[in-house]
Amino acid sequence: MTETLVTAAVLVIGDEILSGRTKDRNLGYIAEYLTRIGIQVREARVVPDIEEEIVAAVNVLRGRYTYVFTTGGIGPTHDDITADSVARAFGVTIDEDPRALAMMEGRYAPGDFTPARRRMARIPAGADLVENPVSRAPGFRIGNVIVMAGVPSVMQAMLDQVAPTLRAGQMMIAETIQADSVPEGLYGGPLGEIAAAHRSVSIGSYPSYADGAFKNQIVVRGVDAEAIAAARVDVEAMLEQVRAARAK
Amino acid sequence: MTETLVTAAVLVIGDEILSGRTKDRNLGYIAEYLTRIGIQVREARVVPDIEEEIVAAVNVLRGRYTYVFTTGGIGPTHDDITADSVARAFGVTIDEDPRALAMMEGRYAPGDFTPARRRMARIPAGADLVENPVSRAPGFRIGNVIVMAGVPSVMQAMLDQVAPTLRAGQMMIAETIQADSVPEGLYGGPLGEIAAAHRSVSIGSYPSYADGAFKNQIVVRGVDAEAIAAARVDVEAMLEQVRAARAK
Repeated sequence: MTETLVTAAVLVIGDEILSGRTKDRNLGYIAEYLTRIGIQVREARVVPDIEEEIVAAVNVLRGRYTYVFTTGGIGPTHDDITADSVARAFGVTIDEDPRALAMMEGRYAPGDFTPARRRMARIPAGADLVENPVSRAPGFRIGNVIVMAGVPSVMQAMLDQVAPTLRAGQMMIAETIQADSVPEGLYGGPLGEIAAAHRSVSIGSYPSYADGAFKNQIVVRGVDAEAIAAARVDVEAMLEQVRAARAK
Repeated sequence: MTETLVTAAVLVIGDEILSGRTKDRNLGYIAEYLTRIGIQVREARVVPDIEEEIVAAVNVLRGRYTYVFTTGGIGPTHDDITADSVARAFGVTIDEDPRALAMMEGRYAPGDFTPARRRMARIPAGADLVENPVSRAPGFRIGNVIVMAGVPSVMQAMLDQVAPTLRAGQMMIAETIQADSVPEGLYGGPLGEIAAAHRSVSIGSYPSYADGAFKNQIVVRGVDAEAIAAARVDVEAMLEQVRAARAK
């Protein structure tokens, strides 16, 4: 009995990503992490710090995928509007959460637990907290939406906290075959035929370019190890043929 | 007379980004590039190599923004379906384009211009080509959608080709104020008041975390240099006050 498919979307929130000022590093990390635990990321979006945009994206994505992971916008400043936006998306109230306050107050000297900091304890009604071992102010989970910080080290710690509570799906297996300096244009035709003959796996070809030459990798992905092995054999035999033809 | 607002979305296409196998570097590059020439990126999406997903995203985004920039999926292999998907999104035919063939055929030895490579000359009817000085196979532009390669060096060269043809909008000015080790939680309140008093600019606070401490930057963005300068003065005075209070 195989587990069902478990899917996810990543929603990156923040003007600074869209202006290019901050280069997002969270999407790649989350994608790799979730893939490893059998959750397939199917879509990602980046939206600005505008409540309507966040609400709309949260509501579309949470209807389409098993989980939605958001990053960014849960800090202490006026531009941190993710918690309020998520509350609005779910149609619930939001207020200072006693559990969040308890987690946070030990961190600050008397008088330093400012209104701005208390803002980070605002949690939508009905949410579970996600602990933040780095800097205390928690993330949260409401329904199938997991709300995390934007600072990578904090986000990563939160993802570690929440991962054991997630439903794991079928593990995807990915095998990489080095095509090295064989040009995609020489194996694209036969690779397409192999892909058509092995419908239970997905075959991708990924070029990279450096020092004036392409270097390519072919990746076979799927849930069935035998099917992957069979496709791999065909890909390798095909590459061997292309290499031999070139060497003539 | 000021120019009107010019907006853009970035659509990253590719399973390999969503599996975490490839870390996207294009979004940050495009965002920074467009910001610099007065085009504001308002949204980004990452979708898999699935025609329906690409068509849906292209059609939503091209209706919402001045321009849409896509990356990925225009290579010679079977998983490169961007050109066909964009043709379908626009409801036009797609076929080998004589201009594209002419650009490409000089690159290959006789007999090496394979069907897979000719696939890269498939261009939607009515599109303009975007030259590719790196590896010849062109991108294209149809309506307000600019279709570029996924390999960063090729994408960057294509963006250079297309940039002079774009409508430039109001230049956004961004000034960064180092808050350094002043915690966001100590300036969040007063910063919110400053933001409320300077509605013509947008003020963001961006923490980063390294070696056990946060390091923060405050960014004031807008189109009016005087308004930005006025907000900056207030932010700096406020930070000075917070620093003085902490030093006591």
